Amino acid sequence: MRTAYHEQLESLTTQLGDMCGLAGTAMERATQALLQADLALAEQVITDHEQISAMSVRAEETAFVLLALQAPVAGDLRAIVSSIQIVADVDRMGALALHVAKIARRRHPQHALPEEVNGYFAEMGRVAVELGQSAREVLLTRDPEKAARIRDEDDAMDDLHRHLFSVLMDREWRHGVAAAVDVTLLGRFYERFADHAVEIARRVIFQVTGHAPEEEGLPLSR
Amino acid sequence: MRTAYHEQLESLTTQLGDMCGLAGTAMERATQALLQADLALAEQVITDHEQISAMSVRAEETAFVLLALQAPVAGDLRAIVSSIQIVADVDRMGALALHVAKIARRRHPQHALPEEVNGYFAEMGRVAVELGQSAREVLLTRDPEKAARIRDEDDAMDDLHRHLFSVLMDREWRHGVAAAVDVTLLGRFYERFADHAVEIARRVIFQVTGHAPEEEGLPLSR
Repeated sequence: MRTAYHEQLESLTTQLGDMCGLAGTAMERATQALLQADLALAEQVITDHEQISAMSVRAEETAFVLLALQAPVAGDLRAIVSSIQIVADVDRMGALALHVAKIARRRHPQHALPEEVNGYFAEMGRVAVELGQSAREVLLTRDPEKAARIRDEDDAMDDLHRHLFSVLMDREWRHGVAAAVDVTLLGRFYERFADHAVEIARRVIFQVTGHAPEEEGLPLSR
Repeated sequence: MRTAYHEQLESLTTQLGDMCGLAGTAMERATQALLQADLALAEQVITDHEQISAMSVRAEETAFVLLALQAPVAGDLRAIVSSIQIVADVDRMGALALHVAKIARRRHPQHALPEEVNGYFAEMGRVAVELGQSAREVLLTRDPEKAARIRDEDDAMDDLHRHLFSVLMDREWRHGVAAAVDVTLLGRFYERFADHAVEIARRVIFQVTGHAPEEEGLPLSR
């Protein structure tokens, strides 16, 4: 009985890890759709989002059944409670990728982005995939060193975001207000995507060590 | 034993309701700080945020203890799992009020907002307080009709947000890109605040009726 239970708990973790991977892939594709003004790819991200939503519902249900049937205690209980919270974070990561894809679709056949900022978004898309992969690894390995890597990736995202804003705020910005609004929102979506990955790592590490990771140098997501 | 347990569960709901009220008040004050360029008020919102964070930690801990000590089943278990998810939503509402206050502080002694959009933000601030109050009432009464009121308030927020964007996108916008960036982010913060209130109502109603409220006309937060 205990063994079947731990198998289920492990399967829940695998589900969450898979969702992180999918969210990263969604953000990668949404970024491509944005950069290439690729309508078909934007549509694909929008359609594929159903899958992440369905997996969220399934993961919540798995966690609920584990609580209901097994009445777990101590560490196991903490793991399941964390899982319920992590579902919300990774679900949101998927929704943020969806938002990016929707802006790409709304602006099609135009490019949403002025060419000047393409490089920033290409890089933010690359970091987003890494964050999805790293969150997955942290979930599967519960390794604090891997969690520290997420901190570095989040720092990279913050730097990109800050530079992007300095480009926007520059008096030389000559792409008008509408493009500035899109770039502001898009930048925010990538930043929040990273925040949620950090939050997932924070929850896993808290669960493993009993300390909030910010005490161990991993900043709290805000 | 069962009675003490239900008292604890009720106290958890009260905690969540109080947090919703505080988040609404925080957004009201942050809005005032923004409109009046009132640094002291902005600082107060920033300081008071600690209280919401501390209450989040406490509410999560209460929920955890209830799960650990009581091994609840069925409806009670669902109520506690929802509570854990609701903590995350209301915590985020507080963080969004904090973000508004921080923009007011960053721009002080300037006003962050061009006078032209003050009216929109005054109104969004008013709706935010109502949303905090309504979320509190939905939590305490579990009344689907009160949940429907949140839908109306969210619609009002969406309308304000849409109008705000049409002002921004207008060729007549003459406040420059920096102000447009602030207005974009601020508008997004109010919109997300409303989304989280809707999500709280959705969770409460799902728990009461077993149906997602969108099946009953309450739109899913996105």
